[in-house]
Amino acid sequence: MATLRVNLGKRSYDIVNEPGALARCGQLAAPLLRGKKTFVVTDAHVAPRYGETVLESLRQAGLEPKLLTVPAGEASKSPEMLARLWEQMAAGGVTRSDSVVALGGGVVGDLAGFAAATILRGVDFVQIPTTLLAQVDSSVGGKVAVDLLAGKNLAGSFYQPRLVVMDPDVLESLPDRVFSDGMAEVIKYGCIWDEALFARLEALGSRRAVMAEIAEITTACCDIKRQVVEQDEHDTGLRLLLNFGHTFGHVYEQAYHYETYTHGEAVAAGMVAAARLGEETGRTEAGTAARIAALLERFRLPTEIAASAEDCRRAMNLDKKSLGGDIRFVFLPRIGRAEAVRLPKSDLFGRL
Amino acid sequence: MATLRVNLGKRSYDIVNEPGALARCGQLAAPLLRGKKTFVVTDAHVAPRYGETVLESLRQAGLEPKLLTVPAGEASKSPEMLARLWEQMAAGGVTRSDSVVALGGGVVGDLAGFAAATILRGVDFVQIPTTLLAQVDSSVGGKVAVDLLAGKNLAGSFYQPRLVVMDPDVLESLPDRVFSDGMAEVIKYGCIWDEALFARLEALGSRRAVMAEIAEITTACCDIKRQVVEQDEHDTGLRLLLNFGHTFGHVYEQAYHYETYTHGEAVAAGMVAAARLGEETGRTEAGTAARIAALLERFRLPTEIAASAEDCRRAMNLDKKSLGGDIRFVFLPRIGRAEAVRLPKSDLFGRL
Repeated sequence: MATLRVNLGKRSYDIVNEPGALARCGQLAAPLLRGKKTFVVTDAHVAPRYGETVLESLRQAGLEPKLLTVPAGEASKSPEMLARLWEQMAAGGVTRSDSVVALGGGVVGDLAGFAAATILRGVDFVQIPTTLLAQVDSSVGGKVAVDLLAGKNLAGSFYQPRLVVMDPDVLESLPDRVFSDGMAEVIKYGCIWDEALFARLEALGSRRAVMAEIAEITTACCDIKRQVVEQDEHDTGLRLLLNFGHTFGHVYEQAYHYETYTHGEAVAAGMVAAARLGEETGRTEAGTAARIAALLERFRLPTEIAASAEDCRRAMNLDKKSLGGDIRFVFLPRIGRAEAVRLPKSDLFGRL
Repeated sequence: MATLRVNLGKRSYDIVNEPGALARCGQLAAPLLRGKKTFVVTDAHVAPRYGETVLESLRQAGLEPKLLTVPAGEASKSPEMLARLWEQMAAGGVTRSDSVVALGGGVVGDLAGFAAATILRGVDFVQIPTTLLAQVDSSVGGKVAVDLLAGKNLAGSFYQPRLVVMDPDVLESLPDRVFSDGMAEVIKYGCIWDEALFARLEALGSRRAVMAEIAEITTACCDIKRQVVEQDEHDTGLRLLLNFGHTFGHVYEQAYHYETYTHGEAVAAGMVAAARLGEETGRTEAGTAARIAALLERFRLPTEIAASAEDCRRAMNLDKKSLGGDIRFVFLPRIGRAEAVRLPKSDLFGRL
């Protein structure tokens, strides 16, 4: 059993990553939970596929699960849906010793996690991420949120789960595009922290080959994020490096109203743009952008997306990394190493 | 200048309590805030009275305040109003270094504090409480929340302000009933912690006499809450004692749909009922209930409110102090000393 311990003092927790973990989530979670009642938040896509397996495992472990299903898709990460979950949990008689389980991708994890962080000012929370993106990204680090009209993830909390249960088997059934969505973040970890991981992905080069080693790869990614988060739980320094490719990525997502490109696709093109800008300004080793682009293409991820200076200006003013007229931007000196630089935002406008 | 320091490690903050503090809030707050933009949340009653004084003081100190006014009354402590504040702050270009100021009573403090805790996952927060209840209770301790359909304060966070600015002068203009609402909590502090404070209130015995020493009295109350909160920031032990009178108080509030009685009125009757129950079961010194009732009557607070066993059952099942079929209930062995006891809820039904 591959288990990774995230060390955050009293808020430390394990990430269990192994085939079949989904069907054993009850026995994994029950010893950590104080109360019996647990609210399993999932979406309409995941519920028919894994809902009963998870509920049955929780029941077998002596818990009393209640399923709360939200519509699939980013639109559910809203203040309205958060309020609906709050009301459903309160009407269901939630007490402080009860818990919330998030079963699904990043939308479900962020929404259910924010509900867990705030119902009765916080109850125990278990993550069962079912997409590659959620496994390597949103299930580690404790960021939970909903979207506002003005932008994504603008209201939320830092809230650590008691346990993360990752089952590599659930990734088999993902559509290719959803798998690639997560691969963009996997590649990002190689870019910012681990050249050996990057080279390994180059050698594998396909979904099938990656899937043969997927638990090792997702654990490697979580381990990188673990190291970063342990040093900077509240995102005031080192954690910024995880945003490599995300500044331009957010510009693309917003310019296309989150409809045309997935998060991973936007970040993919954003990483290439950031590496190109780094090469042009002497901050990045020559050839880096081309090497990243070549790897992204193996997973059918875009390496260029058109956006205007105005798109750029609008998105950056809402960026959480914004500091007045400046922004903190992540460059790669070379593959495997990242650094944050404070720049005037205007240096970035029109660079896309 | 009376300043009380609340020691919570990196989240420590000062409570400044002195006449005229309202008009100096800018110079008090500015050195603690990183950004210039500050969202001043207030309600339609407080805005015309104090809004301009506060905005002008903030401007004089170099800040850029924006006023966000919500309707006066408990109904504003809702998920919908929280979402509206989030959207207004996001549309106003909030960044992580900006801040939120709560100017008003408990509703504004709880609502604005929850918005501050969650917008961009947390920005700096300053409390300017303008009612007696808010000064002695909700401005210390970091509990922020909104109400749900199923009950009050059911969704929220623990979030400490950077500063609390209390101006005793603002209490002069409160209607008598609103002043007494706060006096119930002032008397509660005497009951649970400080017999000398209780005896002092008995000697004063009127609003006018209390107002002559009000800054000393509110500081004494905040100092008691400070000691409790420092030892139990997240409300898992000692902090329970602050709930003296509140278990039955919540029953009354809910039985009358939060309409007939103020929070302080419900707590007043709840303290007498808890003291009586303690006397009947040998947990409380004889005569305690009568002594509390006599003091409450000096401030025209009710000492008895009718409620049914069914009202009791319904309210206690939603109580945050509920643990399965049990509830933690606060008794007074004598005036000045409190203790929490775990009881079957059924011991309390029909005791009103």
